Amino acid sequence: MVPGFDATDEGLMSATYRAFCRRGFASLTMQDIADESEKRKAALHYHYDTKHDLLAAFLEYLYGRFHERVDAVDHDAPAEQLLALAETVLDPPASGERGFRTAMLELRAQAPYAEDYRDRLAKVDRHVRERVVETVAEEAERGVFRDDADPDEMATFVVTVISGAHTRRVPLDCPDCPVDAAQTVLAERVEDLLADEVLAG
Amino acid sequence: MVPGFDATDEGLMSATYRAFCRRGFASLTMQDIADESEKRKAALHYHYDTKHDLLAAFLEYLYGRFHERVDAVDHDAPAEQLLALAETVLDPPASGERGFRTAMLELRAQAPYAEDYRDRLAKVDRHVRERVVETVAEEAERGVFRDDADPDEMATFVVTVISGAHTRRVPLDCPDCPVDAAQTVLAERVEDLLADEVLAG
Repeated sequence: MVPGFDATDEGLMSATYRAFCRRGFASLTMQDIADESEKRKAALHYHYDTKHDLLAAFLEYLYGRFHERVDAVDHDAPAEQLLALAETVLDPPASGERGFRTAMLELRAQAPYAEDYRDRLAKVDRHVRERVVETVAEEAERGVFRDDADPDEMATFVVTVISGAHTRRVPLDCPDCPVDAAQTVLAERVEDLLADEVLAG
Repeated sequence: MVPGFDATDEGLMSATYRAFCRRGFASLTMQDIADESEKRKAALHYHYDTKHDLLAAFLEYLYGRFHERVDAVDHDAPAEQLLALAETVLDPPASGERGFRTAMLELRAQAPYAEDYRDRLAKVDRHVRERVVETVAEEAERGVFRDDADPDEMATFVVTVISGAHTRRVPLDCPDCPVDAAQTVLAERVEDLLADEVLAG
């Protein structure tokens, strides 16, 4: 269970997820969410004043789920660790729904006007960056990655490529193509980071 | 002037640009656009049935402007050619407005539901890819880029990084940081493509 969310909250977040995928962001109403849950609209309003507040909680919940998945990524080999991390972020289970991806892009476009959306999206970006920085720094120290591997630069690289793949897949007829392409790009870059000794061995 | 658009059209497109930046995508009305132009709402409707039709024409216009700028990029050195191309796409004059970038992301999120938006966005993606493929292929033939430089892979790389920078900059407090970071990432990648003889020379 995601910290800070009890069973009732989780039920409500699942209902929000279903309504969000089905209706998108802009036209989503509290009634749509109530329709997907076992609660009445009035009960939703008891917990959350507005759709905005409920969606901010929903983002927090998604972030919690995301955090769990990212921290569960654990490989001995750093190259695989980075790629597994990228795979987790590139194609999380929740993104299987085209409706979800589309609604998330709509929500992201609202971030300049909504500080609480912005903060939560920034947390995701930061969390991925931190994991990449940690992995690259540790492995450069252990001699697996090259001495001159720059953890910050690699972190920026990873979040930029992931963001690009997410955005490109929304309008395309082949939504998996940009994700596959991003995996290839990242795999090459990780290969570039490996120390000569590791490549030789 | 953009092919297919006369002076009247250009005036209307400028008005649409201003209204789009000011009001965003979702809440934009034909009245907002009329308010920015010298025309009445009824006159707009004479040319375009709906806001959707007008925005599809606006995307076509932006694409025309974009096409002109991309084709004007011309450097002798292929590395500079690719970077100047990326710079043109990463930070076109129109994107200076935060409102514009935000509204474009909103519009992009609507693309799955709107074929004419989707087609025009896909054209931009394709146009950049084609320019990259051409440049890399020519320069690999001339021996400036490595023999094994893969034009398609580089094209995917460039559009993914650019898309990622565009998306990341929308919610961030430092909108130029992702763009600067993307330039660095692309410059490194171009460097990797240079043939050994060129580097030695």
